[in-house]
Amino acid sequence: MKNINKYVEHTLLKQDATKEDLDRVLYEAKKYNFLGVCIMPPHVKYAKEYLKGTDIKVVTVLGFPLGTTYMQIKVAEAILAVKDGADEVDMVLNVSALKNKDYQAVGGEILSVVQSVKNTPVKVIIETDLLTKDEIRIATQLVCKTGAKFVKTSTGFVKNGVGAKVEDVKLMYEIASKYNVGVKASGGIKTYQDAVKLIEAGATRLGTSSGVAIVEGANFGI
Amino acid sequence: MKNINKYVEHTLLKQDATKEDLDRVLYEAKKYNFLGVCIMPPHVKYAKEYLKGTDIKVVTVLGFPLGTTYMQIKVAEAILAVKDGADEVDMVLNVSALKNKDYQAVGGEILSVVQSVKNTPVKVIIETDLLTKDEIRIATQLVCKTGAKFVKTSTGFVKNGVGAKVEDVKLMYEIASKYNVGVKASGGIKTYQDAVKLIEAGATRLGTSSGVAIVEGANFGI
Repeated sequence: MKNINKYVEHTLLKQDATKEDLDRVLYEAKKYNFLGVCIMPPHVKYAKEYLKGTDIKVVTVLGFPLGTTYMQIKVAEAILAVKDGADEVDMVLNVSALKNKDYQAVGGEILSVVQSVKNTPVKVIIETDLLTKDEIRIATQLVCKTGAKFVKTSTGFVKNGVGAKVEDVKLMYEIASKYNVGVKASGGIKTYQDAVKLIEAGATRLGTSSGVAIVEGANFGI
Repeated sequence: MKNINKYVEHTLLKQDATKEDLDRVLYEAKKYNFLGVCIMPPHVKYAKEYLKGTDIKVVTVLGFPLGTTYMQIKVAEAILAVKDGADEVDMVLNVSALKNKDYQAVGGEILSVVQSVKNTPVKVIIETDLLTKDEIRIATQLVCKTGAKFVKTSTGFVKNGVGAKVEDVKLMYEIASKYNVGVKASGGIKTYQDAVKLIEAGATRLGTSSGVAIVEGANFGI
C-alpha cells in the first residue's frame, strides 16, 4: 500500500510525556510526513510552531479519556485548543449518558463543540470497547447527525480494552459513509498488517503511536 | 479500628457508569455513613440532591485522570462543580510539567484552582505510580505551598499501576503533616487490612470503590 503515512495521526497521549518525548514525535512526524500528530492540549502551541511550513495537522483531544465531564468543559477546551493552533479536535463522547439512553445530552454536547469551533473538523471518540453493537450503531448515528467530520473508535485508555476492531470499523463505516463522515481507527494499532486491515474495513484515519513501525513495516508487508 | 467508614470516600469514576451504578453508590454511602462519595462532575448535582440532609460530602474530580490539559479548564471545571454542589474537588496535577521541572506551571495551576473555589477544599492527585521518590517529595511540597488541603496518591487509571503504596503515603505524610495538609490514599485499596496499613502510614482519607468490603471486613479484621 502506497502512502500509508498519510493515514497516520502520530499519537502521544501520555500524561507523563516530557519535552523530549514531544520533540521525538514531532521530529518523526516531519521525517515520515505523517498526516498529523495527535497530542495533549497544552502541547498544541509548541507543536504548531514546530510544524510550521509543513501541512502536517495538529490534532488534540477534549474531555480525554473519560468524556464524563461538563459539556461546557469540552467546548472551552475546544476553543482554547483552536486558539492555540489545533487543526482538528477529537472529543470523547459521554458514554455514561449514552448508556442511560440520554441521546439528547450526547448529541447536544457534540453539536455544541462543532458549533463552537466552526470550520475546525471535530472527531468523536465513541469508545467501542465499552459499547454493545447496538450502542456503536446509535453512537455513530448521533455523531453523523451532529456535524462531526469523523467517528473514532477508541481512546486507548480502557482497562483491558483492545481498541480498534475490524468488525467495529466495518459497522461504523457502513453508517458513516452514507453521511460522508470519516472513520478514525485508534487504539492497539501496532503493525502495517493491522493498519491495512482497518483501512480495508473503512478507516480513513489511523490514530497510533506506532506510526514509524507501520511505515517501516510497509516495505516488507510486516 | 472504629469508624473506618469515616475515612472512606466511596468512589465511582467509571466513564460508563449508569444511573443504576450511581444510585447504588449513593445508597451505600448513606447505609454505611461514609465520609463522602467521589464521583464524576456531571453526577454532582444529582448526588447532592440524593444526599440532602446527611453530612456525607460530595467530592468530584478535575482534569481527570490525565491532568494534562489547560489550567483554565481545571479552573472552569472546579467552578462548575462547586456551583452544582461539590463539597470538595480533587484535581490531577500536570505530571508532564512536573517531569519537565516546570514547577511554576504545576504550582500556578494548583493556586489558580484553590483561589477560584475559595473555601472549598482542594485535593491534588500527584499520581505516585509515575513519579520517582524525589518527584513525590517535590510534588507534595508544591501541593502544600499552594493552599491545597490534601495531597492524594493516585487516580487509579495508570496502566499497570498499583495505586496507593504504604511507603509513598509515609513519604507524603512526612512532608504534608508539617503544613497541616492531609493525605488521601487512593487506587487499589480493596480490604480492611489495606485500609488500616495506609491509615497507620498517615492517610487521613481513603478513596476506594471497595468501601463496603472494607467496612464489612472491619468486623472480622479481614
